Amino acid sequence: MQIAMIQDKIVPVNEVEPVYFDRGMFFGDGVYEVMRSYDGKIFALEEHLQRFAGSLSSIKISGVDIDLIRSRILKAFDAAGIANAKIYFHITRGSQPRDRVWNADLQPNFFLTVSAVADNTEEKTQGITVSTFPDWRWKRCDIKSLNLLANVLASTDAASKGCGEAILVDGAGLITEGAGSAFFAVRGQTLQTAPLSANILPSITREFAIKAGRNIGLEIVEKSLTVEQAADSDELLVASTTQDTVAVVRFDDKVIGDGKPGRYTKLLTREFLSFTV
Amino acid sequence: MQIAMIQDKIVPVNEVEPVYFDRGMFFGDGVYEVMRSYDGKIFALEEHLQRFAGSLSSIKISGVDIDLIRSRILKAFDAAGIANAKIYFHITRGSQPRDRVWNADLQPNFFLTVSAVADNTEEKTQGITVSTFPDWRWKRCDIKSLNLLANVLASTDAASKGCGEAILVDGAGLITEGAGSAFFAVRGQTLQTAPLSANILPSITREFAIKAGRNIGLEIVEKSLTVEQAADSDELLVASTTQDTVAVVRFDDKVIGDGKPGRYTKLLTREFLSFTV
Repeated sequence: MQIAMIQDKIVPVNEVEPVYFDRGMFFGDGVYEVMRSYDGKIFALEEHLQRFAGSLSSIKISGVDIDLIRSRILKAFDAAGIANAKIYFHITRGSQPRDRVWNADLQPNFFLTVSAVADNTEEKTQGITVSTFPDWRWKRCDIKSLNLLANVLASTDAASKGCGEAILVDGAGLITEGAGSAFFAVRGQTLQTAPLSANILPSITREFAIKAGRNIGLEIVEKSLTVEQAADSDELLVASTTQDTVAVVRFDDKVIGDGKPGRYTKLLTREFLSFTV
Repeated sequence: MQIAMIQDKIVPVNEVEPVYFDRGMFFGDGVYEVMRSYDGKIFALEEHLQRFAGSLSSIKISGVDIDLIRSRILKAFDAAGIANAKIYFHITRGSQPRDRVWNADLQPNFFLTVSAVADNTEEKTQGITVSTFPDWRWKRCDIKSLNLLANVLASTDAASKGCGEAILVDGAGLITEGAGSAFFAVRGQTLQTAPLSANILPSITREFAIKAGRNIGLEIVEKSLTVEQAADSDELLVASTTQDTVAVVRFDDKVIGDGKPGRYTKLLTREFLSFTV
């Protein structure tokens, strides 16, 4: 008889709930998004939905109605009643007995949470410290997939060193991005960040940070930074959905600027937040 | 209020079952093994348990008692009563609200299935065809983790072409391994396969296949094959837990040998099976 075992309990396979056979669990066979709201208004909802549709298409999950996903998001956001909310959701390819080759007739699984955005007043005013970690991720980081173990290992390594973010460095010594953020350097009158490629996520916050940088008069340079260049930059910052833009005041052992959020980072953050109103 | 949504149903977060917050689902934050039995006897149980302990250690999941895992496996195998069984199990880091940084006090989650090994008489007698696919996997393929989306995409691409396995090719044009198997070429009197590194799984079946190859008089060459070398080999074969060794009779468009399992592959398979008795 086919059986399953959950912790130390034996269960006939046909009595096991489908969630245990979710391809998201077996393979990370799914894609996700994180959005946030500012004062009751979801920021960049359509941009996130568009990227999500792209991720689904990239891994060939078909038959997902984006209008239905939008309506679920709005319904859940409304039900939660949290003004500054973090909205996480994923779609996996569906549940089936474990097989790398997927069944053609699977129904995708949807899961979403709404929670309050963690207060980051201290990070915003003091800046954060970051540490570098090898970029062990797969070669399709442009797809926002559930294969995130490399990010988990990097982030936890950074946290163990008291840092707020891990900055990923590829085999050539170039910075790709943060484990959960885009990474920027202010060098003179320029704002530098890695160019879009299969090695980084097409971050929506990155696009708004670039727009904000341009608006405050910085020249945008889309070119990967070496670790050495990052360490000797005038200012550093990370950008992510939940934190928007946050100054980096220490990069590994190197204090950046005077160890406080720099002038351009503060200007850029103010400009960024004007987009969210 | 923090809420979750499962398909189109809103549920308060505290009423959602922990499996939905499994880090295995959010991040693929776990490791797994697949074993099989031949006529009621589990093959290479200790070797698999040892590798599993290594995988756990590599991603810093601690506090797992391997003796307890062994006893669960034996209990489930016994309960299933399947002589030629496939035993799959994974351990994830545990369940918590989604955060890349893991909580220190998590209890790992264990899940196992026992099912019948699929009959592969046809594959064994006719051989299989394979197709190449880019190796998109992460840089720590030596860890048997749940981050398997690259393998899923490769395997399904192969299946869509009527092939039995995808052979992964890295950016330098070298073959690493199959999406779910080790890959070997017979060239003259040699048996060639990629050397162990962070780019391939330390496959237990690979070790037994190497031993079998040596026993039948082949010289072992642990050196990566190019796609061109593979295509002009005398014989090709893949090795995996569930299939042991199977001849490859077509590699992309190139028929290998006379399109039937070759002499050495047949000898090697016979030798391999003698280990399983």
